[in-house]
Amino acid sequence: MATPRWPAGESEQTALAQEKETGRVEAFSDGVFAIAITLLILELKVPKGPPGTLLANLVAQWPTYLSYLTSFVTILVMWVNHHQMFNLIRRTNVAFLFLNGLLLLFITVVPFPTALVSDHLLGPDSKTAAAVFGGTYFGIAIAFNAVWRYASGGLRLIDPRVDVRSVEAITRAYRVGPAAYFTTFILAFVWVPASLGLNLALAVFFAVTASIRNPTPLP
Amino acid sequence: MATPRWPAGESEQTALAQEKETGRVEAFSDGVFAIAITLLILELKVPKGPPGTLLANLVAQWPTYLSYLTSFVTILVMWVNHHQMFNLIRRTNVAFLFLNGLLLLFITVVPFPTALVSDHLLGPDSKTAAAVFGGTYFGIAIAFNAVWRYASGGLRLIDPRVDVRSVEAITRAYRVGPAAYFTTFILAFVWVPASLGLNLALAVFFAVTASIRNPTPLP
Amino acid sequence: MATPRWPAGESEQTALAQEKETGRVEAFSDGVFAIAITLLILELKVPKGPPGTLLANLVAQWPTYLSYLTSFVTILVMWVNHHQMFNLIRRTNVAFLFLNGLLLLFITVVPFPTALVSDHLLGPDSKTAAAVFGGTYFGIAIAFNAVWRYASGGLRLIDPRVDVRSVEAITRAYRVGPAAYFTTFILAFVWVPASLGLNLALAVFFAVTASIRNPTPLP
Amino acid sequence: MATPRWPAGESEQTALAQEKETGRVEAFSDGVFAIAITLLILELKVPKGPPGTLLANLVAQWPTYLSYLTSFVTILVMWVNHHQMFNLIRRTNVAFLFLNGLLLLFITVVPFPTALVSDHLLGPDSKTAAAVFGGTYFGIAIAFNAVWRYASGGLRLIDPRVDVRSVEAITRAYRVGPAAYFTTFILAFVWVPASLGLNLALAVFFAVTASIRNPTPLP
Repeated sequence: MATPRWPAGESEQTALAQEKETGRVEAFSDGVFAIAITLLILELKVPKGPPGTLLANLVAQWPTYLSYLTSFVTILVMWVNHHQMFNLIRRTNVAFLFLNGLLLLFITVVPFPTALVSDHLLGPDSKTAAAVFGGTYFGIAIAFNAVWRYASGGLRLIDPRVDVRSVEAITRAYRVGPAAYFTTFILAFVWVPASLGLNLALAVFFAVTASIRNPTPLP
Repeated sequence: MATPRWPAGESEQTALAQEKETGRVEAFSDGVFAIAITLLILELKVPKGPPGTLLANLVAQWPTYLSYLTSFVTILVMWVNHHQMFNLIRRTNVAFLFLNGLLLLFITVVPFPTALVSDHLLGPDSKTAAAVFGGTYFGIAIAFNAVWRYASGGLRLIDPRVDVRSVEAITRAYRVGPAAYFTTFILAFVWVPASLGLNLALAVFFAVTASIRNPTPLP
Repeated sequence: MATPRWPAGESEQTALAQEKETGRVEAFSDGVFAIAITLLILELKVPKGPPGTLLANLVAQWPTYLSYLTSFVTILVMWVNHHQMFNLIRRTNVAFLFLNGLLLLFITVVPFPTALVSDHLLGPDSKTAAAVFGGTYFGIAIAFNAVWRYASGGLRLIDPRVDVRSVEAITRAYRVGPAAYFTTFILAFVWVPASLGLNLALAVFFAVTASIRNPTPLP
Repeated sequence: MATPRWPAGESEQTALAQEKETGRVEAFSDGVFAIAITLLILELKVPKGPPGTLLANLVAQWPTYLSYLTSFVTILVMWVNHHQMFNLIRRTNVAFLFLNGLLLLFITVVPFPTALVSDHLLGPDSKTAAAVFGGTYFGIAIAFNAVWRYASGGLRLIDPRVDVRSVEAITRAYRVGPAAYFTTFILAFVWVPASLGLNLALAVFFAVTASIRNPTPLP
């Protein structure tokens, strides 16, 4: 972190306090993202079975790897987006902290639907599991938009040095999420593989579009 | 984090060391808050039951979601308050570190009473579970007040640039906590739903009052 | 974090890189301390038993609370000491990183002997459990001294602005640890309550002496 | 963290944003490394058995301690290397964030093969367990090289003040990893002790070579 040149006096003190506050929200959020993404592994259990069957049992639990991968990539994409969002945000307030907290609530929940899909993908309850999975991601997308809309509405918490077009570009990009994840939720009741496939595809899609939105700076 | 203009010389060095120390206490505390709030999810277990009953079993474990939500919001509110408190604190000492450690002890304990309520809300032991739940929160409120009273008494560790009225406003606001959470503890022996309902209501109430105490800065 | 005035030019760049390095070691160590201290709660399990027996079962698992408390306070004291140590350290090198890693290895192990004592304090294996508990703490004390001796030997990694007497005072204070914890290890084979009681007493003792070593700065 | 003197104006603002970004990637990565290394302990379970057999059962689960130690040291070495790598990197972009995310994916997976080896080292499935263990480490080595090659290729994200020879020295040093860990993977099918022994030896070897590459600065 580096030293911005703020105007001296009282406003400097306020600016310092705000700079410090944004830093702590980011640190706390990073902590939650990092823990949630790492706790996912606890759902990957050593398979039980008679001696000599480990390899077959490891292969048989492929739904676990698939849901692990989808959840890992989704949380990672969410973290990258959170990261980009906070690059533009200079101030916080308590309402913003709680909206961000709502987002973190959904992020911390992710290991639960991930375990549901791991355990039930191949059984008669796969639709229920996939619906909870898609529904959680839908909740994340809604919460993400709520955080961003609150921060960017009237440029409420945006750094004054940021170009308004960057703000609008992010607003447009985030608009896709809720509709897309609502589709995965609905698809869960129709055809589970399509629902989960779309979940994974969306994670990859958002990774790629985030890359295009923020290209490599020229050396 | 930014660069305050301290008087030069030896006092500058001390100031730097203290600034550094506050940062590490906040980082450590943030870590504990972030981990405790994320570990809560490990109590949300995939329900066991015969094939085809997943949805019904998911619905049946609604006490788990309720205690999860209450604990998540309470830890989040505690973190936001901790955050506001540290905005006013510039110095630390070892006594303060241990009082803060006592607070963190209660925060890390939260997943345990949360699991108690999840498992016993619908059984004959619900009063015991709710009393441990309310008692833990009462402990958190006491510890929170101890940290703040120590730091703010005689403005011991308060940033000299902070207005005394902000300090007094926080002292008044925190006074509510212990009495309110003691009530949830007592209510547990009378009527469990009232005790748990008050716990959730208090989390929401403290979220709202924190918002009023720290309104959106004008753009 | 604030901006020291280093001599300009090439040495400034080196100084910056080193400052950054110390910060990351502290952050990583803080993370490990924070996670280890928070994971302890996972050993506190909801007791199983017939309906109506929860309160009795909660009381019956008092060894769990005792070992939890001892481990929590010990890790907290270790963190406070680590914190004080790093206030004096300005530089790092890879050997130091690995010695610090050895210390973190012992810190992360703490939940295991804590669970051992919780499960076996009241049975015929209590000596084994207490010996592993005391042995782990002995290992922590050894590793702590190794880190500090390496950093402070010939003032190798110490901030040049630090008074040599502060360094020597810490060296003397840390010398007590290995002998004291070796005693708890030996006592485990003689009388388990004395061993565990000494463990808890040492945590409190080190908390108090750390407070005396670093008193409240005058307002 | 300290204050570099960037050219004033628009480029300063960009530099600040980039500095901030690198900090957050490091913080997030540190979080994941710290959590993964601390979660390893959850695989160390209190052994079950009739009263009086605890010591024998603790000794009997020596494969658990061995795989714990190997994984702990490996993650620690990876963290130290990650640390050294980021000392040379000043900028980030989204492609880099996702390559770093791929590396973190493999790091978070480590507790799983560690548990596999703990549970199956002494049974007929030891080859499968060792192969998954070696294969995971091979994946880490590949991901590590991918992150570094991307960042250092054409000095894409490297701090302009860094000497090109330092970059080339790291590139050469990292080249060893994939070949060495591929050997542990192949050895798993031939002779399990050799495979696991090589894994532990490599962790120590990389620790020592990292120390030589970055010697103690003269006092």
